[in-house]
Amino acid sequence: MNTLEKQKPLFPKGEKASDEYFTGNTWVNNLVPAEGPFNTWIGNVVFEPGARNNWHTHPGGQVLIATAGVGYYQEKGKPIQLLHPGDVVQIPPGVVHWHGASPDSEFTHIAITTNTQKGIVVWLERVTDQEYHSLANAVTNTK
Amino acid sequence: MNTLEKQKPLFPKGEKASDEYFTGNTWVNNLVPAEGPFNTWIGNVVFEPGARNNWHTHPGGQVLIATAGVGYYQEKGKPIQLLHPGDVVQIPPGVVHWHGASPDSEFTHIAITTNTQKGIVVWLERVTDQEYHSLANAVTNTK
Repeated sequence: MNTLEKQKPLFPKGEKASDEYFTGNTWVNNLVPAEGPFNTWIGNVVFEPGARNNWHTHPGGQVLIATAGVGYYQEKGKPIQLLHPGDVVQIPPGVVHWHGASPDSEFTHIAITTNTQKGIVVWLERVTDQEYHSLANAVTNTK
Repeated sequence: MNTLEKQKPLFPKGEKASDEYFTGNTWVNNLVPAEGPFNTWIGNVVFEPGARNNWHTHPGGQVLIATAGVGYYQEKGKPIQLLHPGDVVQIPPGVVHWHGASPDSEFTHIAITTNTQKGIVVWLERVTDQEYHSLANAVTNTK
């Protein structure tokens, strides 16, 4: 493998995600449809810096595999976790959470939404700027 | 992202796969256990050049995401397909198949074994050297 080949992203960006459920520009490339024999939706998701989805749950759970950039993941009532390439996030069914890019880096993950026969996603309220910037606030507070 | 960071594989190699079910050296990094709430096993698999698994089926299906190198995928009765980074293979439940590296390149894929409540894998006979080299033979035959 040469360096040029390695620098190319694994997947093209795909379609722009809905402004109704995402803040900032996010791109979704559908890889495996939810309706098939796998009961699993798989997609590659690229968040531009600062972009994130709304709070939401997955009735059948979801796994995220971070592949490029620096991302954020937060479960309701817990601090934001930083995500780097190779990090795997296991989101059990019904857990309220959001994910997205950090403010200064694009972020890419593969999303694997499991047990889709139970439902795919339940969208909740938007992640506010205050919630999104709570990691930066926490860091500032320790200075 | 700098070039050095991009050249690092997403995952460490993990454990050597069993010689009983694999020909050649193959490494498996377990990312998500089959027994969890996702009914899904996820692993990163690195095949050394020439390495492959036995013929097998997945009772609940499997999806492969090729991430590095050049690989082979074959379903029983069909020709070998070449796999490159970004290729996604959807293997329906019960389809007899094998996968592995091409003879001259290491190959890495993420394996997503779905509906594991129906079973994970049923191992069958070894892929013979003649079967493994059938792509090379086909190419030779067209000369």
